[in-house]
Amino acid sequence: MSAPKLYDYPASANCYKVRLLLAQLDLAYERIPVDIFDGDTLTKDYARLNPRRETPVLESADGRVFTESNAILWFLAVGSPLLSGEAGEQAETIRWLIYEQTDVVPAIGGLRFRLVTGRLAPGSTEAETRRRSGYDVLRLLDRHLSTRSFLVGERYTIADIGVFGYAHLASETGYNLSEFGHFCDWLVRVTSQGRFMNDLIPYPPNASLTVGRSIYG
Amino acid sequence: MSAPKLYDYPASANCYKVRLLLAQLDLAYERIPVDIFDGDTLTKDYARLNPRRETPVLESADGRVFTESNAILWFLAVGSPLLSGEAGEQAETIRWLIYEQTDVVPAIGGLRFRLVTGRLAPGSTEAETRRRSGYDVLRLLDRHLSTRSFLVGERYTIADIGVFGYAHLASETGYNLSEFGHFCDWLVRVTSQGRFMNDLIPYPPNASLTVGRSIYG
Repeated sequence: MSAPKLYDYPASANCYKVRLLLAQLDLAYERIPVDIFDGDTLTKDYARLNPRRETPVLESADGRVFTESNAILWFLAVGSPLLSGEAGEQAETIRWLIYEQTDVVPAIGGLRFRLVTGRLAPGSTEAETRRRSGYDVLRLLDRHLSTRSFLVGERYTIADIGVFGYAHLASETGYNLSEFGHFCDWLVRVTSQGRFMNDLIPYPPNASLTVGRSIYG
Repeated sequence: MSAPKLYDYPASANCYKVRLLLAQLDLAYERIPVDIFDGDTLTKDYARLNPRRETPVLESADGRVFTESNAILWFLAVGSPLLSGEAGEQAETIRWLIYEQTDVVPAIGGLRFRLVTGRLAPGSTEAETRRRSGYDVLRLLDRHLSTRSFLVGERYTIADIGVFGYAHLASETGYNLSEFGHFCDWLVRVTSQGRFMNDLIPYPPNASLTVGRSIYG
């Protein structure tokens, strides 16, 4: 059996989440770089791998293909201490994995991407709309973390990894975190877990609107 | 032990999904009606139940509170034939439960709600944007279902229930389904499952913008 393959864009926090979990589970894998701004996801081969043409994609050792970053986290974490086997804690984990994609990603990851690559001006209506919902996200996370150390079940799980992926970029996205101390404490708590690493790189020049292709939502 | 309580808005397909699963699992529950357009979710009590002030909320027999419709489906279905215990099939299920909230809901449920209640005009820019992404959703579902009977693992699961919730409203949302035969076959296949029922009601008059409060995103 060969190692699993991760189709990976190094500047995507959706991909970073998976790399972080793989590191923390100490799993070997083959990293296949995908330049989403140089057309790598626009090929027929890539569409066969993922019709949505997104990264990350995980191809397991036995050839099964998994898409959607948080679903990949689940596949890798089943049976490990990073995912509970109890129905209620599993449901709470899924609640956060869904919330991350519906709310955290647009307000933090999506806003950061658009500001950094020149797709949105800082004071534009859309930037302000995203920022308001971002503060809702930070308030909700801070309040939840005011009475507990981790998002689910009082221990570090893929719920934390999933939300951390983009949430840790809140400050550099221009959010003022001074009122969200519990959230900040949690960020630090995540970074102090065993085998933690952060290899997320900045967006390269070809991600900017004036240079690259506009294919990243 | 008392029966679980479902805090429920009868015109919400996010709530209908849960009612459908409860019916198919033949589970007794207490249904607590929540009029989201008459302020029922704006109380302090409701905020304690769900800080996001959304329906549905499930309170289990032992008093645990679960939010996020698809996470509730998971909690109820663990250990039943409607949810696989295998890691890969679980990951595929989560992939669809996330996709339903990020893509299916805004393009079908969100568009339908806005059109029916007078929040969006049919030809408006936002309506057209949502409709284009809705056709992307229908194409993706149709293509996926062209080679299989159900979304995950060749049997009916909560992935089907989750996506069906709003997807079955595509036609009445004005989508032309003539090119999506596999999708339509799947809709019929879902409705022919044991104990299937559909008790979703139309939005009542107070949901319309001119009458009710504007609290439903």
